Amino acid sequence: MSLTLDDVRAAARRLDDRVTRTPVITSPWWDDASGHHVFFKCENLQRAGSFKIRGALNKLLSLTPEERRRGVIAFSSGNHAQGVALAARMVGTSAMVVMPKDAPALKLEATRGYGADVVFYDRLREDREAIARRLAAETGRVLVPPFDDYAIMAGQGTAALELLADAPSLDVLVAPVGGGGLMAGCSTAARSLLPGITIIGVEADTANDTYLSLQKGERVTIPPPPTIADGIRVTTPGELTFPILRRNRAAIALVTDEEIRAAVRALALRARVVVEPTGAVGAAAVLGGNLAVERGARVGLILSGGNIDPEALIDILKGSGT
Amino acid sequence: MSLTLDDVRAAARRLDDRVTRTPVITSPWWDDASGHHVFFKCENLQRAGSFKIRGALNKLLSLTPEERRRGVIAFSSGNHAQGVALAARMVGTSAMVVMPKDAPALKLEATRGYGADVVFYDRLREDREAIARRLAAETGRVLVPPFDDYAIMAGQGTAALELLADAPSLDVLVAPVGGGGLMAGCSTAARSLLPGITIIGVEADTANDTYLSLQKGERVTIPPPPTIADGIRVTTPGELTFPILRRNRAAIALVTDEEIRAAVRALALRARVVVEPTGAVGAAAVLGGNLAVERGARVGLILSGGNIDPEALIDILKGSGT
Repeated sequence: MSLTLDDVRAAARRLDDRVTRTPVITSPWWDDASGHHVFFKCENLQRAGSFKIRGALNKLLSLTPEERRRGVIAFSSGNHAQGVALAARMVGTSAMVVMPKDAPALKLEATRGYGADVVFYDRLREDREAIARRLAAETGRVLVPPFDDYAIMAGQGTAALELLADAPSLDVLVAPVGGGGLMAGCSTAARSLLPGITIIGVEADTANDTYLSLQKGERVTIPPPPTIADGIRVTTPGELTFPILRRNRAAIALVTDEEIRAAVRALALRARVVVEPTGAVGAAAVLGGNLAVERGARVGLILSGGNIDPEALIDILKGSGT
Repeated sequence: MSLTLDDVRAAARRLDDRVTRTPVITSPWWDDASGHHVFFKCENLQRAGSFKIRGALNKLLSLTPEERRRGVIAFSSGNHAQGVALAARMVGTSAMVVMPKDAPALKLEATRGYGADVVFYDRLREDREAIARRLAAETGRVLVPPFDDYAIMAGQGTAALELLADAPSLDVLVAPVGGGGLMAGCSTAARSLLPGITIIGVEADTANDTYLSLQKGERVTIPPPPTIADGIRVTTPGELTFPILRRNRAAIALVTDEEIRAAVRALALRARVVVEPTGAVGAAAVLGGNLAVERGARVGLILSGGNIDPEALIDILKGSGT
């Protein structure tokens, strides 16, 4: 079994009218600065503030009544937590979420606001997946993984389906890569619909597990990365997502935290949208000229989330440049 | 002569493909906080950062070849300046703009960036309109007024046409009121298409010239207002716009600078869009409960612009509340 365009399309039908069809916006300033025609898919304007509701809701809508009765459990640095919490409320089940102690306050608050129970762990010392699996076994809840699951990937891929519908004839698709769920779904949709498209995932340079893995041809593990992009602090690509990224010929571009901060700033001041650091890594690659694509290319770029603490946003806006 | 729906529709045809059809977004947080269903028309995502390009371009596209050859002149606190400067570049004519010395740096920089010549005046001591009229007489340039002109009003009204198309069955239309150009155009479109709609303009409480004028039944003049909303620091309603606001039964709600700041903050952090203070006065009224409309009403609200200096945005994000 793998992931197909039909899976993504089925997810789109399931999610129709339940998630926001986010706008695709353009910005003359960004076009001038990058030399490309950039089409921003604004998943920062999505329900619960990121694309994560797509995968989570697709997964939860696929559960049996018996599974829904038992409830769900997830581990997440934040956005997946909110996605699962909101999806659980939407389908009428309960959610428990395992979050790192240093998760952004806004993400924690929102997850609780959707009614989920939050359990903390230490991101640098404990294995959140092991904790979640133990809790899943103890409580009988169904584990909703953040990326390594076909229903999750199919849901995330609906973002690319919409982007390709609203901005046809794209030359390039750009999206953040953490565990690879968003990219697995989006690259499957894009490679099927536009076989010649260039697909570029973006990682922070300290969170380059997928970059290294693609180079080596197998999954490698890195130490917990310190990047400001808290949503992609992943140490190894997904077992299921990684082969899909390879199959879809996704390349990886790397960006520094400084480039990410500059992109968040220019998105706020020039494109007038608030995007969290993780959500801005693609924009950082475009702005930094890190994409090996032709000048004038039509670049579809997923701004994956907008959940940023005010203090973090203020700190970034204070930065120099742009 | 007055302004009709047909004028607005003609402007829409003229502007088609030249200005951005800006998205209409929703935010569960804003719906919860306000008790309404709020549909934000994102003119902060418009070309040159505000709705002003609509009126300016409609006006410039209506000029004779001889008038275009002579060039145009405008007076503006900022957004109209950018709108005229960009419109002039788009139609291939030259623009001179009279701006206050204390105009936000970003607005000044952008106006020059579009190729306009900028002439300064002292907002508290000099009459910019008189200066612009003198310069118009001296240079032969065509004056493009910021609001008191039917072509300008018709262009601005296209924002409401789009909003009503994307968010049908609105109960209420809310937009900022400075000189009244945006509201004249938008209320004409809305009152024609939805005769029963409630139309509410919003002013800063220190810039309440239209509020007082509607109360008195004639145009009154106030001292230069100190509000943070620099785009609506107007001392008297337009001679042409005011009768149109009365005809269309526009009411006025007032908001404090503190409410405006809270709205800018909540728009950035909860709706994830960057809106300048002037552009957020409608949102401030919704958030402050200043609209005398039923709970659960469907409120279409124009976020009129997003041109804010980073320092001002940082200062507002630092504020308490929300």
